[in-house]
Amino acid sequence: MTAMTREQCLALDQEDPLRRLRDQFALPQGVIYLDGNSLGARPRSAAARAAEVVSEEWGTGLIRSWNTAGWFELPQRLGNMLAPLIGAGEDEVVVTDTTSSNLFKVLAAALRVQQTRDPKRKVIVSEASNFPTDLYIAQGLADLLQQGYSLRLVNAPEEIDAAVDADTAVLMLTHVNYKTGEMLDMASVTEMAHARGALTVWDLAHSAGAVPVALKASGADYAVGCTYKYLNGGPGSPAFLWVAPSLRDAFWQPLSGWWGHAAPFAMEPGYRPREGVARFLCGTQPIASLAMVECGLDIYAQTDMAVLRAKSLMLTDLFIALVETRCAAHPLELVTPRAHARRGSHVSFAHPDGFAVVQALIERGVIGDYREPRIARFGFTPLYTSFTEVWDAVEILRDVLDSGTYKAERHQTRGLVT
Amino acid sequence: MTAMTREQCLALDQEDPLRRLRDQFALPQGVIYLDGNSLGARPRSAAARAAEVVSEEWGTGLIRSWNTAGWFELPQRLGNMLAPLIGAGEDEVVVTDTTSSNLFKVLAAALRVQQTRDPKRKVIVSEASNFPTDLYIAQGLADLLQQGYSLRLVNAPEEIDAAVDADTAVLMLTHVNYKTGEMLDMASVTEMAHARGALTVWDLAHSAGAVPVALKASGADYAVGCTYKYLNGGPGSPAFLWVAPSLRDAFWQPLSGWWGHAAPFAMEPGYRPREGVARFLCGTQPIASLAMVECGLDIYAQTDMAVLRAKSLMLTDLFIALVETRCAAHPLELVTPRAHARRGSHVSFAHPDGFAVVQALIERGVIGDYREPRIARFGFTPLYTSFTEVWDAVEILRDVLDSGTYKAERHQTRGLVT
Repeated sequence: MTAMTREQCLALDQEDPLRRLRDQFALPQGVIYLDGNSLGARPRSAAARAAEVVSEEWGTGLIRSWNTAGWFELPQRLGNMLAPLIGAGEDEVVVTDTTSSNLFKVLAAALRVQQTRDPKRKVIVSEASNFPTDLYIAQGLADLLQQGYSLRLVNAPEEIDAAVDADTAVLMLTHVNYKTGEMLDMASVTEMAHARGALTVWDLAHSAGAVPVALKASGADYAVGCTYKYLNGGPGSPAFLWVAPSLRDAFWQPLSGWWGHAAPFAMEPGYRPREGVARFLCGTQPIASLAMVECGLDIYAQTDMAVLRAKSLMLTDLFIALVETRCAAHPLELVTPRAHARRGSHVSFAHPDGFAVVQALIERGVIGDYREPRIARFGFTPLYTSFTEVWDAVEILRDVLDSGTYKAERHQTRGLVT
Repeated sequence: MTAMTREQCLALDQEDPLRRLRDQFALPQGVIYLDGNSLGARPRSAAARAAEVVSEEWGTGLIRSWNTAGWFELPQRLGNMLAPLIGAGEDEVVVTDTTSSNLFKVLAAALRVQQTRDPKRKVIVSEASNFPTDLYIAQGLADLLQQGYSLRLVNAPEEIDAAVDADTAVLMLTHVNYKTGEMLDMASVTEMAHARGALTVWDLAHSAGAVPVALKASGADYAVGCTYKYLNGGPGSPAFLWVAPSLRDAFWQPLSGWWGHAAPFAMEPGYRPREGVARFLCGTQPIASLAMVECGLDIYAQTDMAVLRAKSLMLTDLFIALVETRCAAHPLELVTPRAHARRGSHVSFAHPDGFAVVQALIERGVIGDYREPRIARFGFTPLYTSFTEVWDAVEILRDVLDSGTYKAERHQTRGLVT
């Protein structure tokens, strides 16, 4: 599929079954936003929801709102809304804390399971190109545990298979790589890990709401992810966490705070975990930020991941084709896999002056982002990105590259976030 | 000081130097709110701030707001605003994560320091009546570490001294007890702990903004606390964390996420901590909830803790005197210390039907809360509680008790939060 004129892109937008959902987002004028994989756009309804939480639930309801406004149930209620997007079941997901904290919980839980099953397994296998905070958390946990726990990093997805051995406790992977946009085959990787006695932990930060995910069908063990990227929950909105039902009731995690207690208001001095996924909860959640997660999920409830995936692939195919034809004179190298089965919903091109090119694009209103080294990254969020925007973004990219003005930009490592 | 008529209370309100600050809060009609120690009231400015974050910073600024709206600096900027209230210095406090997570970080850090200094120290000493989540977190950490780490709980403050011995790694205490309102002497307890080689971790949940706290002057080692109680940051607003400068640069903590990395945007696979207190940061914070913390701190910047403490003691003295005189016919027993030096800013009375009495009060618009067993708890927040409200609350309490209607209320353990 390659539309080679702007008119053809306009026609694709006219036929787009998701077109009406774009109107539910408040997108700023003069901007082509290709960074929804870093911070999703704002659902229009979020403004009213925030006002309701602040003025009514907090201001008027005060402490009573823990019950009357349903604050206490929010992590599970939102988890149930999110579950269908990632192939999880009812009462299997909670929205809480940060992705980093949740990863710490599930890694600790997985290592504890292995300590029971096969105590010699003390290695966490991951990719060196995994999102750095995931690696930092695994390092922090291994350092805390001491007793020989360690991290083993491979340099490419092809090396994962050889790295999982009889010492491996956990295979910790990000489903869609934040930098390259490469998607792993969750089912086959999980099958390989299980065959060798390892458990799997999946980070769905760049998958949830972007590509169909089948956690249960894939046999995965644990997953964490983010609600502020494709799910449009708002800046820093709380993350989510899933665990396979078969592992859940054996679940132990060290961040054992009051919200995960079996009797949270009995104020017992000893910890007893709640039944089910709620035992993953820890401390008091930021209600205003948490409540707005619902606004993004409400929009997802109006479509399904198959429709979204179809449009996502059309958008990324179009972007790749247009860049490779209309910007062919410039040294842009596609980093993201061409094969649909291995591609998420963002596309990365390497360019020798990647940082400067991205800065020049942002000044022209095309917001993508830069990732070390040399990578210009563009996210395509099928809920609100139009085909015409893809066309216009590539034309601006071409103009920036042809003009050479980006070369005046100074390289800085300080950039924008994930 | 005992005002024995409503007219005298009105006069005290007229003379109150904090009177004008009450107008900066949006308090609901028909409610006497004595639960600001659980969830603080809403600053009027919070509605506009939330709208700004959601509509402008998120909606229009999108990913650019990490830099242009100062999101990246928020944890430290708010920490600097909070620091004077707790006797901490510039660049010593961050506002981030939950109290539970922060406690996990500082406990792990303290145990690591002790592992270097004196590895046989593996006991965390605390009070059985400490806020339960603090105990749960300590249990979770000890369970995670294994290797003989354990928790030792005492049943009364008088037993703390005898419990701190040559095996003690950390003395973990809440400065003002959530249930009794008893305040510990931070300086003398810390001095005792240090003389025996133990480090101190202080939970300031019921202290910050309620009583003067002198962390540095007391020689304390670590502190965590809450911004959604007296500090009026909003429901579940992120917590804070302080560490003594002498321990900070040796600081290691296992929740090592991207925001605490020395070069958070360089995307290095290996963790390197940032300089200073920012190494306590972990994952991406809930910006809407975090930003509103500033609204409460803005009000504190207009007064000081000495003025607030003077009014707090007048309010709690008045409440105790009125309850003990006007409700003398009823079996109410003061739980909170009478001595000013040992009293925080809330007052608890035990009553055989405590739960039912509190429910009946809430139905009459007097919002306090109930804590197991039998305790009716009333918070007095000098920024907005008036002397006349204290009078009126006691009159309603007397009426409830005299009428006996509360006895129809059924006891339930499900209650309101912290």
